[in-house]
Order: sequence, then C-alpha cells, then structure tokens
Amino acid sequence: MQTSNFIGELLGTLVLILLGDGVVANILLKGSKGENGGWIVVTAAWAFAVMCGIFVAQKFGSPDAHLNPAVTIAMAVKSGDWSNVGSFIAAQMIGAFLGATLVWLTYLPHWSITEDKGAKLGVFATAPAIRNPTGNLISEIIGTIVLIIVSNSFTADLPNGFAPYLVGMLVWAIGLSLGGPTGYAINPARDLGPRIAHAVLPISGKGTSDWNYAWIPVVGPIVGGILAALFLGAFNI
Amino acid sequence: MQTSNFIGELLGTLVLILLGDGVVANILLKGSKGENGGWIVVTAAWAFAVMCGIFVAQKFGSPDAHLNPAVTIAMAVKSGDWSNVGSFIAAQMIGAFLGATLVWLTYLPHWSITEDKGAKLGVFATAPAIRNPTGNLISEIIGTIVLIIVSNSFTADLPNGFAPYLVGMLVWAIGLSLGGPTGYAINPARDLGPRIAHAVLPISGKGTSDWNYAWIPVVGPIVGGILAALFLGAFNI
Amino acid sequence: MQTSNFIGELLGTLVLILLGDGVVANILLKGSKGENGGWIVVTAAWAFAVMCGIFVAQKFGSPDAHLNPAVTIAMAVKSGDWSNVGSFIAAQMIGAFLGATLVWLTYLPHWSITEDKGAKLGVFATAPAIRNPTGNLISEIIGTIVLIIVSNSFTADLPNGFAPYLVGMLVWAIGLSLGGPTGYAINPARDLGPRIAHAVLPISGKGTSDWNYAWIPVVGPIVGGILAALFLGAFNI
Amino acid sequence: MQTSNFIGELLGTLVLILLGDGVVANILLKGSKGENGGWIVVTAAWAFAVMCGIFVAQKFGSPDAHLNPAVTIAMAVKSGDWSNVGSFIAAQMIGAFLGATLVWLTYLPHWSITEDKGAKLGVFATAPAIRNPTGNLISEIIGTIVLIIVSNSFTADLPNGFAPYLVGMLVWAIGLSLGGPTGYAINPARDLGPRIAHAVLPISGKGTSDWNYAWIPVVGPIVGGILAALFLGAFNI
Repeated sequence: MQTSNFIGELLGTLVLILLGDGVVANILLKGSKGENGGWIVVTAAWAFAVMCGIFVAQKFGSPDAHLNPAVTIAMAVKSGDWSNVGSFIAAQMIGAFLGATLVWLTYLPHWSITEDKGAKLGVFATAPAIRNPTGNLISEIIGTIVLIIVSNSFTADLPNGFAPYLVGMLVWAIGLSLGGPTGYAINPARDLGPRIAHAVLPISGKGTSDWNYAWIPVVGPIVGGILAALFLGAFNI
Repeated sequence: MQTSNFIGELLGTLVLILLGDGVVANILLKGSKGENGGWIVVTAAWAFAVMCGIFVAQKFGSPDAHLNPAVTIAMAVKSGDWSNVGSFIAAQMIGAFLGATLVWLTYLPHWSITEDKGAKLGVFATAPAIRNPTGNLISEIIGTIVLIIVSNSFTADLPNGFAPYLVGMLVWAIGLSLGGPTGYAINPARDLGPRIAHAVLPISGKGTSDWNYAWIPVVGPIVGGILAALFLGAFNI
Repeated sequence: MQTSNFIGELLGTLVLILLGDGVVANILLKGSKGENGGWIVVTAAWAFAVMCGIFVAQKFGSPDAHLNPAVTIAMAVKSGDWSNVGSFIAAQMIGAFLGATLVWLTYLPHWSITEDKGAKLGVFATAPAIRNPTGNLISEIIGTIVLIIVSNSFTADLPNGFAPYLVGMLVWAIGLSLGGPTGYAINPARDLGPRIAHAVLPISGKGTSDWNYAWIPVVGPIVGGILAALFLGAFNI
Repeated sequence: MQTSNFIGELLGTLVLILLGDGVVANILLKGSKGENGGWIVVTAAWAFAVMCGIFVAQKFGSPDAHLNPAVTIAMAVKSGDWSNVGSFIAAQMIGAFLGATLVWLTYLPHWSITEDKGAKLGVFATAPAIRNPTGNLISEIIGTIVLIIVSNSFTADLPNGFAPYLVGMLVWAIGLSLGGPTGYAINPARDLGPRIAHAVLPISGKGTSDWNYAWIPVVGPIVGGILAALFLGAFNI
C-alpha cells in the first residue's frame, strides 16, 4: 500500500486517540490499574499521545501531521490553500473513531463492571467541569490559540524529531494549566470522533452521548484556530 | 506588524503567566478537573510554561527571551548595557498582566463557586508558607541565584531549541526543591503583574491583594539576580 | 571480554528488568520509601528502564537493542531473516531472569515483612486487573502493536541517542494509557523471565507463580508483534 | 577568578545538593508547599538536580563532572590515574556541605515548627527503610553499579548537552526503582557532606545525626563504583 497524507492523518489521529482516550479509561474505569491516577497521569499520557501520533502521521505520509481539524483550518487560513482541508478532516475523523474503538477493545472487561455512565462517556468525549456554554467556549478558544501560536513558535531549524517532542510537552502544559474547565478538547476530531464511537459501539451499560455539549469542542477549537492564524498572519509568522 | 524585543518579551511573558497561573487555577479553584493535583502538577506546568514562553519570545522578536526583570537586570549588570532594561521590564509587566487576565477568562465559571479568597489570590500571586520576611526574602534570593547561574551554565553550543527546554527543566527543579517556603516567584513580573490584575479585574468574591507581601517577590529576585550576575562576572562567565 | 549481540541483549534486558521490576517492588513491598507511589511512578520508571536498557544493549554489542522477543520476532517477520531469533531470545530470557534476581537482592529486607503474596508475585510478573483471557489477550496484542508501529515511526535520521529516549517516552505512554487491564507486559521476556525467577528464588513467604496466566503475556505480545510487522510490511516501512 | 576542576566539582555538587536536599525539605518540613508531595516529586527533583549540577560543573571547569566520589574512584580504577582523586573528593565534600547549608537557609522558618527530628535529619542524610546493614549495603552497591554502567553506556557522540540530561533521567530511574530500601545515596558526598552539615549547623530542635548508619552510604557506593569499573574494564568500555 501507498503512504499518503490521508493515511498519515488517519493513523496519526488513531494513535493520538488510542493513547489519549486510553488514559481516561485507565483512570476512570473500575478495577483498572491506573484507577484514580490523577491529573498528572492524564496530562502526561495525552502529551505522549500527541507526540506519538505526530511521528506516526509523518512516517505514513503526512509530513505536517495536523491530527486536528482546528490546525488544518488554521493552516488553510494562513496559506489560503483550502484544497486539502476536506480530506484531512475526513481522515482525522475516521482515525479518531477507530482509535476510540480500539480503546473500547483494550478495556473490554472493564465496561460492564463500571456503573458510572458519565465515566464511560468521559473516556470518549470531554465534558465541562461546570456547564456554562460561554465560559466553556472561551476556555476551548484560548486553549487552541495557545496550541497553535506556541507550536508555530518552535523554529524550523530544530534537530530532527525534536519538534514532535516539544509539541507533546506543549500539550502537557495546556492540559495541566488550561484543561481544568473543559478537559481541553482543543481538537474537534478528538471529541466528535470518539463521541460518535460512544454512540455507535455496543458499550456495556452506556448512557447518553451528551449531544447538547458536542458543539462546543467543535466550534471552540475552530474559532481558536482561525483567531490564532489571523494573529500569526498579522506578524507574517 | 513587526516583531520586536518588546513584542517578544510581552507575548513570551503572557504565555508564561497564562500557562503558569493557569495551573494554580486548575488545582485551587473549586470543581476544576485538576483540583488538588499536587505539587508535581504545579511544578511541571510552570516548567513547560517557561519553555513555551521562551520559544514564543524568540519567535516574536526577543532572541534572549528574558521574561523576567530579574534576568534583565542581571544581564545589564553583567554587560554594563542598561539601555533596554526599561522597555524589557515594561513589556514583561504588560505581558504578565494580560496573561493573568486570560487565566481569569479561561476559568470564568469557577470564581464564583470558589469561596476561599486566599485560593483566588493564590492563582495570581505567590504567598509565603510561613510569613517571615527575612526567611522569605532569603528563599527568593537563593532561588533566583540558582535560576540565573544554572541557566548561564547551559553552554552556547547546544542544538537549536534545547536550551529553552533545559531552562524549563531547571525551573521544574527550582519549583520542586526550593519552592516550598514562598511558592518560587523568582521573577518580579510573575508576581507583581498578576497581583495588579487581581486588584483590577472584577473577580467574583475576591479578597485583598495582600500588598504587604508584594515587595518580597520583587526585591528578592532582583537582589538574587544582581548577586548572580556579580558571581558570574567574577569568573568571566 | 568481547561485546556482542548476545551480551548486549542480555545486559540490556537485565537493566530493563532491574529498573522495571524494581519500581514495582518499591511501590508494593511493605516499608519501602516509594510505597503506594501511584501509577505515574510505575510508568515513569518503566519508561526510563527501557531507555537505559537500550543504551546498555547498544554499548555492549547489540545496536538494534530489541530487549523483547516480540520485537525480535517482528523484525524477523519483516526482514525474513530468522537466523538470530533463537540466540536473541535466549539472551533476553537470561537477562530478564538475572535482572529480577537483582531486584530480589536490592529489596532483600522487605520480602519477609510483606504479607501479601500477590504483591510479591506482582514485583516479578504481570497479573490482569480482571481475569478474562480473551480481553487480556486483546489488551496485550494492542499494546504491542502500538509499541512496534510507533517505535518504527521514529525516523532513522534522529540525533544520536534521541531514539532510545523516544522509545522510553512511548513506553511511558503505553503504560499510562493501555496498561490498565493487564499491566502491559508487551514483552514475553519481561514477564516469563521474572516469573521463572519468582518460582526459583527463595523469596520469603512467596505464593504461587500463577502459571495459569503465564501464556497470555507471552502469546499476546508475539501475536501483536507479528501483526505489527505485517502491517508495516504492507506499507514497505 | 579562574574556573577549574576544583571549582567545577565544588559548585556542581553544591547545586546537586541544594536542589536534591531541597526537595526532601519541601516534602518533609511542616507547612512547606510541597509537603507530602510523594515519591514522584522526590525523584524528579533529584534527577534535575544531577542534570543541573553537571552543567554547572562543566561550565566552571570540570568537563567530566563527577560530583560523586564513587564516580571519581571508579574512573581512577578504570584509567589507573589516581592523581586527582583527592582534590575531586575534597571539592565534592565542600560543595555538598555548602549546598546543604543553603537548604537550611532556604527553609529557615520551617525548622522550628517541624517536630519530627527524623524528618529534619532526613533532609540532609539518607536513612534505611528497614535497618539491615547487609541488605542496605547490597542496595547501595547495586544502585551505584547501575549508575556507573548505564551512564558509561551513553555514547560519546551525543549532541551537546544531551548526556547531562540523560544522566538526570537515569538518576530518576534509579530513584524510582532502586531507591526504596535506602533512599539511594549512591554517592558518598551526597550523604556524608550534608550529614556533617546537620551535625554542625544550628538547626532548630535537631536530633542525632545517626552516625551508626553513616558508613553504609559511603562504603556501598565506593564498592559499587569499583565493581562497575572492573566490569566495564573487562569489556574495554
């Protein structure tokens, strides 16, 4: 088979979500060895998940390794080239869905013994600490702006492989510092793909997929991505 | 727009404080997902906050990326060139104020449900574990000396981007090891800028900004910076 | 003496298991300073254990540093060259046995005061959170596929020494995210070698070595390794 | 002033102990912000302490940056050159004493309110989890062998500044995995220098300096260092 941008984005996002949603399963599902592991466990795992996803995306054909529709849209706003936006986002959504499905399989015996339906949804999709659409939206917008402006500040002349590592550390920082109110989706595919998986998969004793909230981790990151792109553009960065 | 030392210091310090004060909000504000995350969470986030701030400062025009009046003054003592000290410190203070304001916005729904006024101030400014001006001052002086002497020990011939990462790890170490008595301001702008933001912003149910203590995280780091500069100068480093 | 692939694999796996099983002793054995250190402690240590093991293996003559029969078999499937598989696996098993023996020695005074026989076995071998052969097998297969596909995505042109570090971070991610159901053996030698050591060594007050479960952390990783190799081969990676 | 091996070893060890003993003060002394921070806090800090100490030692004139009499003796055994052993160890001991003194100053207000005399000694010197001279000695010997063999496995052709970072990560691993029984001195100066400081300084409400145990963290690491050097020598490494 041929590697390509599509395959790269798909597999990179798959790995991102498998390792990212995986840690939430580990701390929230009953009996799991990492149960109640705490915020440092969650944020460290998402950091390395992003790093691993980027390397995989690059290896399988997507050198820019977006893994995130908000990044894809921001880059299109910056460059003016929208030709690949559709296929990138499709690949990211499929990858996110498949990654979430693999999390379900990895933790197969744990779903039926976990009673908390909110915890089971929490493995797949983000939920706000306090349900407040305006506040939650602001939170997601600011988190995504930080993601895009700081990752664009990693200079082009880094040693090979150091940029994906630094992006991982940046995501660690965002989780630790800005993840408190909404669980830092900062990526529409990260939230919507697994939420669809939650709705579709035969998860034992699952509850609602909380579609009321689903628009915030989609719209917030996209708005943040566009604002960040305009900001960077104003400085020709 | 043009990037410049001023813009770089301003945006770099903004990112430093947004990610730094952000983690304190995450562990102290009620209902936040990182509540009671512990000292490892706080110190990891400040480490990555410094690293991200440096990259942003460099990208937006400040290659030396001080982000800290104590560093700016120390470098002026070392070089004898005081011409940029005023504008650097102004940029750092404005950036710190804006970063703190964005923390307030990111955690918007959490202020009104948090009753502890000290916790709300703690998001913005440092407070001593034991109020003891001499002891607290010594603590801040020693922490800042370590910051400046060790960061000046990172050799000039590191691979691109490795120095900002190492400075982050150094700040992690200072927080873990020397942050116990005062919460390691080691940076006048880090404390004073957000303290002013605390005084000015319409934070729900806020208390005093504790101006009695405010001089210590300003004077301590400046004294530490000068002593470190003199020490380095004695060895021609 | 001459360094060689055999010596390299043996010593590298020894270091991997000494540092890996060591952390489990630290958190599970009574009175130990790291007792109840939590999942972040376990997973960080295994990450650095892998990193250290790779450097040692390379220094002592095994430049590819497998340390893991599943990796050795996957590489044989990919390359079609099975000539070294036997000697590599023998070296890995001997190293794992010796590493586990050194863990027993390092924690010598702690075995007799630890009453929990399951904890004592847990230092040496993995056990499932929920005993469910199919589920546990799937978990080990998926974890090993991630190990092999992501580590093969670290490009060949990284700076010297960066690949072993990244593999360590990858193993941190796997532990944090996929280690919940089975404790992530993802390596037959890691589980079987120390399990034999548990059976053989005169450990104070030990119980059964749980041979019923022993096939899963052997078969799962090997199946995962073969599937990963076929997947990479399909893309000529 | 002139930088030199002596100054480098002295200042490097000072920084190592200031940041290393500092974290123990932070988690053990009453009221400190990192109180009860846990094993991940302790081990992370010692890791970065070693890294920072190495950079400082190199900058101030000691390119090999031992910071540890066991390393100095091991290198002398390997090379046959014992000419600098005395001055290196003297510098390390003075640096360790001064570093411990600065920890006392940094945490000045916390000594009098901490009642536990063992905790106050624990800031300065290691103590065994279970007092068992043979077991404790074995523990320190194994830990030091790992330190020296793994750090000698970091190849010479790493990018600038990466080796000190890796040594830090190695020390993190040793702490996490082998530090349970004795608190991993693995360095005679790390234990004896601060123990002397504990005996000499006017620490409020201090107890005994536990001289009965003091020989183990001196003899164990030296024996481990010699054994490691002989092992490396047998392979011409």
